[in-house]
Amino acid sequence: MVKRLKDIGFGLNATKNVKRFITEDGRFNTSHINKKSIFESTYSYLIRISWISFFCYVLLAYILINVLFALGYVFIGVNDISAYESPYFIDNFLNAFLFSSQTITTVGYGVMSPSGTASGILASFEALVGLLSFSFTTGLLYGRFSKPKTLISFSKNFVVRPFRNKRALMIKVMNTSRNILIKPKVDVTLILHKLVNGYFQPEYFNLKLERKTITYLPTTWTIVHEIDEESPFFNLTKEKIEEYKAEIVVLFSYYDDAFNNEIYDVKSYLYRDLIIDKKFTKSYGYGEEGRLVIDHSMLHDIENL
Amino acid sequence: MVKRLKDIGFGLNATKNVKRFITEDGRFNTSHINKKSIFESTYSYLIRISWISFFCYVLLAYILINVLFALGYVFIGVNDISAYESPYFIDNFLNAFLFSSQTITTVGYGVMSPSGTASGILASFEALVGLLSFSFTTGLLYGRFSKPKTLISFSKNFVVRPFRNKRALMIKVMNTSRNILIKPKVDVTLILHKLVNGYFQPEYFNLKLERKTITYLPTTWTIVHEIDEESPFFNLTKEKIEEYKAEIVVLFSYYDDAFNNEIYDVKSYLYRDLIIDKKFTKSYGYGEEGRLVIDHSMLHDIENL
Amino acid sequence: MVKRLKDIGFGLNATKNVKRFITEDGRFNTSHINKKSIFESTYSYLIRISWISFFCYVLLAYILINVLFALGYVFIGVNDISAYESPYFIDNFLNAFLFSSQTITTVGYGVMSPSGTASGILASFEALVGLLSFSFTTGLLYGRFSKPKTLISFSKNFVVRPFRNKRALMIKVMNTSRNILIKPKVDVTLILHKLVNGYFQPEYFNLKLERKTITYLPTTWTIVHEIDEESPFFNLTKEKIEEYKAEIVVLFSYYDDAFNNEIYDVKSYLYRDLIIDKKFTKSYGYGEEGRLVIDHSMLHDIENL
Amino acid sequence: MVKRLKDIGFGLNATKNVKRFITEDGRFNTSHINKKSIFESTYSYLIRISWISFFCYVLLAYILINVLFALGYVFIGVNDISAYESPYFIDNFLNAFLFSSQTITTVGYGVMSPSGTASGILASFEALVGLLSFSFTTGLLYGRFSKPKTLISFSKNFVVRPFRNKRALMIKVMNTSRNILIKPKVDVTLILHKLVNGYFQPEYFNLKLERKTITYLPTTWTIVHEIDEESPFFNLTKEKIEEYKAEIVVLFSYYDDAFNNEIYDVKSYLYRDLIIDKKFTKSYGYGEEGRLVIDHSMLHDIENL
Repeated sequence: MVKRLKDIGFGLNATKNVKRFITEDGRFNTSHINKKSIFESTYSYLIRISWISFFCYVLLAYILINVLFALGYVFIGVNDISAYESPYFIDNFLNAFLFSSQTITTVGYGVMSPSGTASGILASFEALVGLLSFSFTTGLLYGRFSKPKTLISFSKNFVVRPFRNKRALMIKVMNTSRNILIKPKVDVTLILHKLVNGYFQPEYFNLKLERKTITYLPTTWTIVHEIDEESPFFNLTKEKIEEYKAEIVVLFSYYDDAFNNEIYDVKSYLYRDLIIDKKFTKSYGYGEEGRLVIDHSMLHDIENL
Repeated sequence: MVKRLKDIGFGLNATKNVKRFITEDGRFNTSHINKKSIFESTYSYLIRISWISFFCYVLLAYILINVLFALGYVFIGVNDISAYESPYFIDNFLNAFLFSSQTITTVGYGVMSPSGTASGILASFEALVGLLSFSFTTGLLYGRFSKPKTLISFSKNFVVRPFRNKRALMIKVMNTSRNILIKPKVDVTLILHKLVNGYFQPEYFNLKLERKTITYLPTTWTIVHEIDEESPFFNLTKEKIEEYKAEIVVLFSYYDDAFNNEIYDVKSYLYRDLIIDKKFTKSYGYGEEGRLVIDHSMLHDIENL
Repeated sequence: MVKRLKDIGFGLNATKNVKRFITEDGRFNTSHINKKSIFESTYSYLIRISWISFFCYVLLAYILINVLFALGYVFIGVNDISAYESPYFIDNFLNAFLFSSQTITTVGYGVMSPSGTASGILASFEALVGLLSFSFTTGLLYGRFSKPKTLISFSKNFVVRPFRNKRALMIKVMNTSRNILIKPKVDVTLILHKLVNGYFQPEYFNLKLERKTITYLPTTWTIVHEIDEESPFFNLTKEKIEEYKAEIVVLFSYYDDAFNNEIYDVKSYLYRDLIIDKKFTKSYGYGEEGRLVIDHSMLHDIENL
Repeated sequence: MVKRLKDIGFGLNATKNVKRFITEDGRFNTSHINKKSIFESTYSYLIRISWISFFCYVLLAYILINVLFALGYVFIGVNDISAYESPYFIDNFLNAFLFSSQTITTVGYGVMSPSGTASGILASFEALVGLLSFSFTTGLLYGRFSKPKTLISFSKNFVVRPFRNKRALMIKVMNTSRNILIKPKVDVTLILHKLVNGYFQPEYFNLKLERKTITYLPTTWTIVHEIDEESPFFNLTKEKIEEYKAEIVVLFSYYDDAFNNEIYDVKSYLYRDLIIDKKFTKSYGYGEEGRLVIDHSMLHDIENL
């Protein structure tokens, strides 16, 4: 039976607490109930997980499918696929498992091979399943390869510090590759959650930036929002920022010359990522031979003014 | 012989009736005659159908191709591929079928194997056919995977109800995933079919919207068209809407952060999808832990004002 | 030795004749000499050719590679792969060919199998070649599938005829599918080749269109260029159009809803495709059930005014 | 232990020398230290290298993996997979290697086949590894195919010469294919490195162009920057250009009709690529039959004014 929102008694507005808008893995912080299309989610999930998880799933699926077919061959009778039949189930099952794996991978040594009709049909079907599974895996692998990869990294923190007689909010991005990133653009939104009639209500503010775009991004770029009278940060103390559970959402896009694709990336900062009156450490320098050297381990470094 | 429009005596204008412009599966409601490129249509069809239909076609094709090759081996002589030749056609055919399946999947156990030249050449060709078919299937599978998927759902109905001292037409869309949908844009067209000199003539109206775009779409968005003096809905009764067979075409686009692609989606509403003086039920709420919960089963819900 | 333009004595300007700018297969009408990257051209060629040509190439490559490896096995000695060695070359070659095909397709029945080291290594290498070739073919097949396909067709001819008290040039395009083509845009260029000092010199004119874009293209669209005083066609007789070897280049683009891609298509008309004082026959009508029927065989039809 | 920029004592500014901004292979001239995601770099590397290097890596990986599994089979005991066990390690290893290659490619002749449980499990696992590796290779191959290819070439040098009573800087690009390149756009940036307080500081200038875009690019296009009073080249002698280590970065984009994709390309010229008071040789002409002939070997040719 379908459980619906009203049955669970969820409130239409958050009262006690309110969670961030966008999670750290760059997705909306929502949960979906009564959703149907499981398949698409599965595919999308298998594209997103790490390589280690992916190969574990492949191995597990391989073992599972072989176990199922092995049980089928044992059910039909192991003497149908092997000259040797043991009185013990485990031996027969093991043989059937190995035969199954030889069939599904289409190795087919032939020492074991189906001699009866039932096992013949099952093996014929298993070989088809095997080839389809590997087509499937090829598709998944290429799907993982061709998924556009973001080549930029964001600083872990954002900084508010004096800047040109005012104060400014700063965020740092780094090109983590030698690929030519063309015309990076940035768009920064501030979300404040204010308590109105006992409910949290989000307010959205678009932050005015010193520069919204540059031509190339070879090393790092510090995005600057000047806190002038029009800024929502004007008169906002650190305590207020925490009270309002401020969240800063950065939408970054650029054209990747190597993949010839427009890439978007979203990063969300929470109020607790704020650092006051410090500055980002410069994370690139010139080597002896006059070539720019970028230090990935220094992207998040902060130093005193 | 080619049958052409004039031969069938189709009218150049609809007289008795007129069908919707865009069908519910999001395609133009047209039929094509005397079309040539069958192959492209087949590919496009195999990409579009459900997974169950797809696998049924694969299984059918597998059986069919094996039957054809099996008949070939029987024709050449089963003693060419098997030590055992039965006096019954069905036994020989079954053996040839199993041998064919072992060849086309490249399992090749070797208990049956071609001993003559004719069967050798046929088996060599079949293995090539097999590999090409599975290359083909891999291509189709990846084509199915990589087809851009719409992550939004539209409400089943559209609503006309009081709104800010006027009336307004409303349509609801939902982000069905946690993917970050960036800058959704919407464009709504009204089509009215009026009888002029006994023929239906379509009239197109672009509906002015309260907002044509938002920055992010985490949950749902209610698209609002205010029915003011300039609206084609002004002075249009429910009866007129039905008489004119009104159709509302919604063109929706957004940038999908996970797939890095601009996605378009089209939805068409018919006059019979109109609901008057009700409102959409809010289909998301906050869970105990302050996180947004979206209920897919409530997208289409309507409630009293 | 490299032959260069000057060696061949080509003129820098055309004197006797001048060919069309864009060929009928939608490519620039240029020939390239002293070009290097053959591989890219080969890939691009295998993507472009018809399916029949493609499969012929695959079959030829399959036979050729097997012949090469078969010669290798014969050279090593057929007794290394088969229990039976014939005194006749052709028998040994045939066996080696069948063994090679069983190896390259990875069928590997095992009746023939390498018993010596040399043949073992060669077979091991051949199986790798086989798998790589089929990976390659899979890539090519998917490359062919995923190549964006134009879903529109252009009329074979363009028409000049009376229109709203003036004359107008008209071109017709048809949506050949049920896919929703969104916001088609069109851009028409006229090229006239005039003899200046004995050389043909191309002049380019952008033709002003009645409409450059529409919202949807469900059936056909007649693109109209009104021949007013500013039009390059004004005062241009049919004889002049031929003398100047007029060419009309149509650049057409739209967003394909099914493939979620912006598609461009280019069509070129020559002066000899001009038809005067006729009109395009309407190529769609309404069926009994009120549904639009599009007749592909009528796209190019012309009728009297 | 992680070595960081400061540990190595790199300067934050170049003092002795400064290298070019973009290398000749079209990537940023930066080096990255303490970088993490090795896998992505590996994939990106395997997509970028030449076909010969790619196949060498495949062959090496094939041999290496087979050697590893062969050692496994030898460790388990060669009598488990082969009727014949030699007293010499090298013979057993060779047999195990051949068996491994027959398993990993799924040929599986069956003359050698696993008879024990350990070798059976290992062979079952190896066949899985084999299929995954070839899925992987298929993905890589298609990744290489589908990588957008630039169809334009730039002249090796840039030229400064008299032009319309002034001087102008010129760069030449060629369409190296018959594909229709639509609306090519160009953007040229000059980088001068001036010594300020003993450090090189880059200054960026956007060069004003005579034309930033054309409709089609069938043959070649000479990009022209007029050196007027506003140009950063005004009053810049050849010696100054060298002293400032001038670099010219050309950003070129166009829509490729055959691949239906917007393609970007970046080219960087150094001060030493400057040629003064010469002009580019026209690298196309008309053949006897009035068709344009483009000579790739003449793209870089320079001649006297």
